Amino acid sequence: MLELATQSGLAVTDRATLAARFDAVRRHTEALAGNLTAEDQAIQSMPDVSPTKWHLAHVTWFFETFLAARHDPAYRVFDPAFHYLFNSYYEAEGPRHPRPQRGLLSRPSVDDVAAYRGHVGAAMRRLIETLPDEALPLVELGLHHEQQHQELILMDIKHVFSANPLLPAYQPARRRAGSPAAPLAWVEFAGGLDEIGHDGAGFAFDNEMPRHKVWLDPFRLASRPVSCGDWLGFIDDGGYRRAEFWLSDGWAAVRQEGWEAPLYWRRADEGWRVFTLSGEKRVDPAEPVCHVSFYEADAFAKWAGKRLPTEAEWELASRDVPLAGNLGGTRRYHPAAGEGGEGLVQMIGDVWEWTASPYVPYPRFRAAAGAVGEYNGKFMSSQMVLRGGAAVTPEGHIRATYRNFFPPAARWAFSGLRLAEDA
Amino acid sequence: MLELATQSGLAVTDRATLAARFDAVRRHTEALAGNLTAEDQAIQSMPDVSPTKWHLAHVTWFFETFLAARHDPAYRVFDPAFHYLFNSYYEAEGPRHPRPQRGLLSRPSVDDVAAYRGHVGAAMRRLIETLPDEALPLVELGLHHEQQHQELILMDIKHVFSANPLLPAYQPARRRAGSPAAPLAWVEFAGGLDEIGHDGAGFAFDNEMPRHKVWLDPFRLASRPVSCGDWLGFIDDGGYRRAEFWLSDGWAAVRQEGWEAPLYWRRADEGWRVFTLSGEKRVDPAEPVCHVSFYEADAFAKWAGKRLPTEAEWELASRDVPLAGNLGGTRRYHPAAGEGGEGLVQMIGDVWEWTASPYVPYPRFRAAAGAVGEYNGKFMSSQMVLRGGAAVTPEGHIRATYRNFFPPAARWAFSGLRLAEDA
Amino acid sequence: MLELATQSGLAVTDRATLAARFDAVRRHTEALAGNLTAEDQAIQSMPDVSPTKWHLAHVTWFFETFLAARHDPAYRVFDPAFHYLFNSYYEAEGPRHPRPQRGLLSRPSVDDVAAYRGHVGAAMRRLIETLPDEALPLVELGLHHEQQHQELILMDIKHVFSANPLLPAYQPARRRAGSPAAPLAWVEFAGGLDEIGHDGAGFAFDNEMPRHKVWLDPFRLASRPVSCGDWLGFIDDGGYRRAEFWLSDGWAAVRQEGWEAPLYWRRADEGWRVFTLSGEKRVDPAEPVCHVSFYEADAFAKWAGKRLPTEAEWELASRDVPLAGNLGGTRRYHPAAGEGGEGLVQMIGDVWEWTASPYVPYPRFRAAAGAVGEYNGKFMSSQMVLRGGAAVTPEGHIRATYRNFFPPAARWAFSGLRLAEDA
Amino acid sequence: MLELATQSGLAVTDRATLAARFDAVRRHTEALAGNLTAEDQAIQSMPDVSPTKWHLAHVTWFFETFLAARHDPAYRVFDPAFHYLFNSYYEAEGPRHPRPQRGLLSRPSVDDVAAYRGHVGAAMRRLIETLPDEALPLVELGLHHEQQHQELILMDIKHVFSANPLLPAYQPARRRAGSPAAPLAWVEFAGGLDEIGHDGAGFAFDNEMPRHKVWLDPFRLASRPVSCGDWLGFIDDGGYRRAEFWLSDGWAAVRQEGWEAPLYWRRADEGWRVFTLSGEKRVDPAEPVCHVSFYEADAFAKWAGKRLPTEAEWELASRDVPLAGNLGGTRRYHPAAGEGGEGLVQMIGDVWEWTASPYVPYPRFRAAAGAVGEYNGKFMSSQMVLRGGAAVTPEGHIRATYRNFFPPAARWAFSGLRLAEDA
Repeated sequence: MLELATQSGLAVTDRATLAARFDAVRRHTEALAGNLTAEDQAIQSMPDVSPTKWHLAHVTWFFETFLAARHDPAYRVFDPAFHYLFNSYYEAEGPRHPRPQRGLLSRPSVDDVAAYRGHVGAAMRRLIETLPDEALPLVELGLHHEQQHQELILMDIKHVFSANPLLPAYQPARRRAGSPAAPLAWVEFAGGLDEIGHDGAGFAFDNEMPRHKVWLDPFRLASRPVSCGDWLGFIDDGGYRRAEFWLSDGWAAVRQEGWEAPLYWRRADEGWRVFTLSGEKRVDPAEPVCHVSFYEADAFAKWAGKRLPTEAEWELASRDVPLAGNLGGTRRYHPAAGEGGEGLVQMIGDVWEWTASPYVPYPRFRAAAGAVGEYNGKFMSSQMVLRGGAAVTPEGHIRATYRNFFPPAARWAFSGLRLAEDA
Repeated sequence: MLELATQSGLAVTDRATLAARFDAVRRHTEALAGNLTAEDQAIQSMPDVSPTKWHLAHVTWFFETFLAARHDPAYRVFDPAFHYLFNSYYEAEGPRHPRPQRGLLSRPSVDDVAAYRGHVGAAMRRLIETLPDEALPLVELGLHHEQQHQELILMDIKHVFSANPLLPAYQPARRRAGSPAAPLAWVEFAGGLDEIGHDGAGFAFDNEMPRHKVWLDPFRLASRPVSCGDWLGFIDDGGYRRAEFWLSDGWAAVRQEGWEAPLYWRRADEGWRVFTLSGEKRVDPAEPVCHVSFYEADAFAKWAGKRLPTEAEWELASRDVPLAGNLGGTRRYHPAAGEGGEGLVQMIGDVWEWTASPYVPYPRFRAAAGAVGEYNGKFMSSQMVLRGGAAVTPEGHIRATYRNFFPPAARWAFSGLRLAEDA
Repeated sequence: MLELATQSGLAVTDRATLAARFDAVRRHTEALAGNLTAEDQAIQSMPDVSPTKWHLAHVTWFFETFLAARHDPAYRVFDPAFHYLFNSYYEAEGPRHPRPQRGLLSRPSVDDVAAYRGHVGAAMRRLIETLPDEALPLVELGLHHEQQHQELILMDIKHVFSANPLLPAYQPARRRAGSPAAPLAWVEFAGGLDEIGHDGAGFAFDNEMPRHKVWLDPFRLASRPVSCGDWLGFIDDGGYRRAEFWLSDGWAAVRQEGWEAPLYWRRADEGWRVFTLSGEKRVDPAEPVCHVSFYEADAFAKWAGKRLPTEAEWELASRDVPLAGNLGGTRRYHPAAGEGGEGLVQMIGDVWEWTASPYVPYPRFRAAAGAVGEYNGKFMSSQMVLRGGAAVTPEGHIRATYRNFFPPAARWAFSGLRLAEDA
Repeated sequence: MLELATQSGLAVTDRATLAARFDAVRRHTEALAGNLTAEDQAIQSMPDVSPTKWHLAHVTWFFETFLAARHDPAYRVFDPAFHYLFNSYYEAEGPRHPRPQRGLLSRPSVDDVAAYRGHVGAAMRRLIETLPDEALPLVELGLHHEQQHQELILMDIKHVFSANPLLPAYQPARRRAGSPAAPLAWVEFAGGLDEIGHDGAGFAFDNEMPRHKVWLDPFRLASRPVSCGDWLGFIDDGGYRRAEFWLSDGWAAVRQEGWEAPLYWRRADEGWRVFTLSGEKRVDPAEPVCHVSFYEADAFAKWAGKRLPTEAEWELASRDVPLAGNLGGTRRYHPAAGEGGEGLVQMIGDVWEWTASPYVPYPRFRAAAGAVGEYNGKFMSSQMVLRGGAAVTPEGHIRATYRNFFPPAARWAFSGLRLAEDA
């Protein structure tokens, strides 16, 4: 990771800027937890979910382990037990607390974790001034890592709250103009021999590199994501009861899990309702559908007579989309006048879009040396790539080459889809 | 329950006394939670364990459901959702929150639960003044129910803390005179045709009734419970590795669970250590062994060439033991000068003692009508009876006829054993 | 076992008689397998079930291990691998093939097993002539052991065939006079201080001893077992949907297993049908209900306002019943003229009758020394006693003191029930 | 499938040839079962494995269902129950017997299945004469389907026998010249824009089509598969104990399953032994390693500082390899004089070689209409592609474009690997 990030041209000439960015990212994380009680922050609702305070501590552990403890001889470890408790999955860092048991930790308390953050934050601010140049990319990596966990905090607390019959709201609902979904249009791309992957400017994770050649046949991409209204059509047409649309594993999941709608949907007397970070509300047909698994996305596409795009198709198409910053925590609705019905909208920052591409290394991929080499590479198996970012993805954290990934049955990410077809 | 308790002669002539007792029991429950943070009170470390605040709310739900809501027309239900959340196992009261998911409830908060307790407590205090006589035994039942949960709170928080690598202490350690265990003697009883079961004076649960005849052959009972020192002998002699001592199901548990010592014991370089409510300490050979399953107790007895007593033997023998109040929260060491080596000691209030008796209804047992009929009767299957109470059993809650029960593999109760033999 | 059987007065003065009995029992086992193909004899439909050929080999292993190999210095072990393959549960005999994997053994073939039986049979016939007196009871034990497996062969093949959508028949159906069930009457017993258990004459298993005193309150026993017609009333009254009749564990089983009738019953358009050893047929209301669990038996009794008898009640009552030999493989219907409506009928040899008694050792019970000490004693945990024998129990194998036992959820034994009530 | 196969240029001008091929394939299947007893053919050792006789019946069901019953109005269904019993996974054909319960079917017997094969075989021979041209490719598909099951029969019976402590041999061992593995060389390929996939001549499955463009960077391929000798080096270097080589899911499998060598290997006092279709023997360092999972193959490659080839790399490289027919049932050792150390050897017909490619549809893939559309497409999820065929793959069934696939943890296929590296 280190080498690659350095090669990618990151210029860290201004340490003060980095320090300011460090403070901003850390504050944002803490602000996300600000809505929550200490009890809320301790709950783990399934093995994939981590308690909020665990996230707060783990991102701090990352800075402590890979930077403060290695580069500052005077650094005093906050609590030696934390090395075991807050290691997520780094085998090279030794044994760790089992993931499914993160919800058993009433101690360290939320206050202890805040003190830990303060201790490591202070050390990091000193360290940023003195760190050798070649270690600065690790600070950048730590900040992007923390931003990933900012999104996970919201994914996870949504799941935690959804498991509570009281259906608590994380935040107040925001009013949205009730405009219908834009009409769906098809945008054609010529394909041919092209390149995808990170090109060297700005930060990127190792899994986005190296940039490499791909061949693409001509294809078309839907102008907007599949909406909840579209999805209601799938449900009403028996989509969840007709095996012919489903991959074999997907059909097994439908029957075993009893899926009959996206995660967080509930059929009420007055129609479908959906649990959100602002509590339960009526399903809005105009919104992009969210919290569907890859299996559901794939079945929907087959039902519609279409397919999912590959990640290469998605990335090439996205080059024409202005990467406007998104508004973390709310959902944007792009179709501005200028873009009209013929352009691609909502590519970035609405819902993660499942692609047809398994998550595998790019040609000539090399994981970084050392423990941070475990960051991405070892997960390249049995997962599918998602692109585009969601409304909860932190501003400045998303880009066209970004590869998110989840197992095909996962539904608790903010995952939707956009259709494609052969031209 | 209602009828039986009334029949058993409970005289509630003094409602002020009952109200005072109500306040004392409720205060004691709250005091037990006083050592804990809000986070501590939300954790569930296994399906059998409930979060502290769930206990606090459930015992309150009992008073609300079976008394306030039924007998006070003016009573305003605190929160209708609580009827679902805090029903433990009463099928007649409708659907309920699944037991293994009690640890997912960050809300209602500890403060909400305190408010709930206040609301119902106030209603109960009014109700105690006006309740018809025939309903007063239900108040008594509710208080004994709450006392049972006082013990469960301590059993459960011990398990919760033991699952935390930081090994938090619930309370400070108390110093104990390091006297050795009393020498073990055998006390002989003639047996014959006798009676066991509650005789009608004072409160008793329905499962202690009716009093009925039993025939007993002559037998001897050990003067004291098996000590940790005794247990070390069993371990050192390969007790956990020799199938010949074990019931078939017990041996399966040894191998599947990897048992090699009582729950909470850990082999350290310097010897065996044990996790307690005051944190981890060295195993004290003089203390009664605790947190062993029925299977272990039975295997120990076979190894020792003895057996466990039946509950009838235990109850008859206990009649000679003065029922001195125990010192809730600490462990008493009886062998006072006067009792010497020849008498039974530590029968009441040290550790629950596994008996050889399955938990089945006494002859002519009748469960009470209505929902409280589910209190005891429906659990009379695949469990074993324990007698005597533990150091954590609330003072005034234990008696010679009291039948506690757990599945034979359970170890998180404060369960030990006393040996018996045929005379 | 050895000592106890000897003490129990077994006089084996005539070795020729024993040899003849040996041959008869062995031939009967082989006759039971005679209806089956080699493929039928290899299948294991659930972990509790063993393949027919495994039974044939295991009972032979018993004679080889405990008699031929120990008492005949010239005995040549048939195949050393069989010691591992055909040990059922004797820990003292070393490691053994895992029970759930008995159905993976296509080899040794049915023919190999026949050769094994021939080899050991010949050795046993020689040995019976020369065996010291004190070892003869082990031969008797081996024959009773083989008779137990004769019943298991039928229990197990019924389950195997029931798992096959083709519903094969083990044997042709026998025609039965379609008489209705006898009207149910109540027979009263005075109780008092009495004795139960084997009294020393004839063979008995160690778990039937020693004979010991019990106190019984007056009680009444139903004159006949609960019939299928009775059970239809329970079903039609919502018995499987009403929690109030069920033990907590039983209710969990109902919901988890989806029970809505006895095992092998199926609701067809024209009414309830039942799978039998002669294929599927209509449920006959006059027959005793069979293949119900203890949980179902207990729930039925509660629904009927009655209870199950204890094993002591059952045994005392049975003393008045003539122990007519039953007709192995078919079901007898006793109510002969002489017995009338007022006497107990079908106590022996129709269906095993669940009692209210957990399977625990009798007072002063001692398991035999050595490996056969594992025969019964180590299973005295979490099981319930059944009495009376079923139509498939071998003739001459059942007696009034016989204690059969199964876990409370088991349904594949030929288990029914008879009601009792307090007098 | 139908259309694609027709488009692919299959010319069925000579129905007599097709009939002869039909007979030859069917006879070969029966010959494979000829080594086995009826009992052998009934066993299922894990859910992935099917009993031999189930394979024999299922391939017959395929002909009956998709050809005889649809195209011959006079065809009499052999047994209507077989439609349920022998449907493997075709949802469009209605409900089916659950896969994990195939081993419960002692009936239909091996003889019944033989009669079924005879009945359908006769019908097929008549039908081949009269079938309309456009249905003939379905016969071809049915034969390739049966050939796939010929390999499965051997994979599965090997697993069945390995679960038997007697370690039966399916066939006698063949003597092999004990030559060492060829020295490993690297063969370089220029890559560039090329095409892979079936080109239209001869039979291919739908998943091999359509032929399509791919871009490849220059790469090198190892001249031979990884040998058992190579694998011993991996084991000895701690390969199964060092997390750094493993994908995260792979490492979890290592720990959960306790992997420390390929499937069927066993560490004996005298060294590693391996179970084969000819019984157990010493591991031969010269043979290609077999029965490793994708996870193990990938870890080995990382340990060796190399990687697995993509399926496109493999396919392009294989074009230079003469597709000599392999010798079904034995393992060939190619390195003939002409090929020398510099050429690729053992590409076809030794062991299936794991590739780095997830099993996904080729661009513009279309599954066939109707039930045979379920043949391949619905499994394109969470599996990895293997190329090349094994020694047990039927002669004439393998080709350079053939895509086999298994989940990454599967080990019971004859799966090995060949290394690749970037040029």
